[in-house]
Amino acid sequence: MAQQERAVRTRRAVLEAAATVFAEHGYTAATVADILKTAGVTKGALYFHFDSKEALAKGVLELQTDMALPEQEIKLQELIDVAMSVAHRLVHEPLLRAGARLSADPMGRRHYGSAWPLWVDVLTDILTVAHQRGETLAHVVPREVAELVVSSFNGVQLYAQLETDLEDVEYRVSVLLKHLLPSIASAPVLMRLDVAPDRGARILREAVQVPVPA
Amino acid sequence: MAQQERAVRTRRAVLEAAATVFAEHGYTAATVADILKTAGVTKGALYFHFDSKEALAKGVLELQTDMALPEQEIKLQELIDVAMSVAHRLVHEPLLRAGARLSADPMGRRHYGSAWPLWVDVLTDILTVAHQRGETLAHVVPREVAELVVSSFNGVQLYAQLETDLEDVEYRVSVLLKHLLPSIASAPVLMRLDVAPDRGARILREAVQVPVPA
Repeated sequence: MAQQERAVRTRRAVLEAAATVFAEHGYTAATVADILKTAGVTKGALYFHFDSKEALAKGVLELQTDMALPEQEIKLQELIDVAMSVAHRLVHEPLLRAGARLSADPMGRRHYGSAWPLWVDVLTDILTVAHQRGETLAHVVPREVAELVVSSFNGVQLYAQLETDLEDVEYRVSVLLKHLLPSIASAPVLMRLDVAPDRGARILREAVQVPVPA
Repeated sequence: MAQQERAVRTRRAVLEAAATVFAEHGYTAATVADILKTAGVTKGALYFHFDSKEALAKGVLELQTDMALPEQEIKLQELIDVAMSVAHRLVHEPLLRAGARLSADPMGRRHYGSAWPLWVDVLTDILTVAHQRGETLAHVVPREVAELVVSSFNGVQLYAQLETDLEDVEYRVSVLLKHLLPSIASAPVLMRLDVAPDRGARILREAVQVPVPA
């Protein structure tokens, strides 16, 4: 294994371990010692990549939007696909749960930031193209709707996390989208959108993961 | 002042102080000593009403839904009025900010509970009557929509809290309701609803506060 490839793997392993600890304990209660133990790497290897708990949290947040989903004929379907695939990944990946928890922590803004602006950018880009293609209703302002989807999604996932331990998060996000989309999409587009609760699982099977940059 | 009246006032003052401290620092970092200092009552007076930090948090949560808003001709308007008046009160009252923060804290479920089930009950009751009166679309399931509104509202208020220090929370909640209601209300009802950002301020001016039980 080339040295650079090994470094990339170590960095990823450390971030996965950090995510597991942040998702379970939150930022304040998490310690670098816990993360070291979970990652199974040396202290030197960890500090080579990340010089603080803050840097670890930032690294976890940067990975949140790092995924490539297949393009869709209807651009608005891609907004649904982002939301439903994140809902699915929340159930299965500590990385996404950590991102949600870190971003919702009032402590975060002073220390490491938030993934919300990244998600708002992803959805604004999709909505801007959808708007240009005439898929959205006339009154839709891409950034405003993007912030609405990110913020309401976050409330729904937090509710599912605390009330049902994420068991029904995909169903709840599907209900949210079913209620929001009639005031976003034009009628002919609306009826062709797939917002089924299992959409995330299906689309992720098709997706190709973007390699983590070194 | 009668002894009972004094006890009611002391209890309320302690809970307002607890709310201020919880809203600012969160449950874990808050201490009973901070709350004592903020309340300006004796240790004995505080412990007469609340024997622990847990009991203080529970007391704050119980007060969240304790408000009487004027009845409306269209029942669905009352759902909007609850949401918009809470949005308005979040800006002005630590009591509501504490309720939101305590309810969203993953620690909470083990220690003091959450205000979310109280809000879901309030909205389910309104939606059930609205449904019986034919104001809602046929597919609306009152409890499901109530949970959707509570969870998405919570996401929007948290977003406003962390991104703009609540400056635009009333506008954001208004945008949320404008996007959700077309898939909840029948068309003739929809066009008669008032979801303006200043609805909360206006309705609270009419409202009569329910006295806190002793």
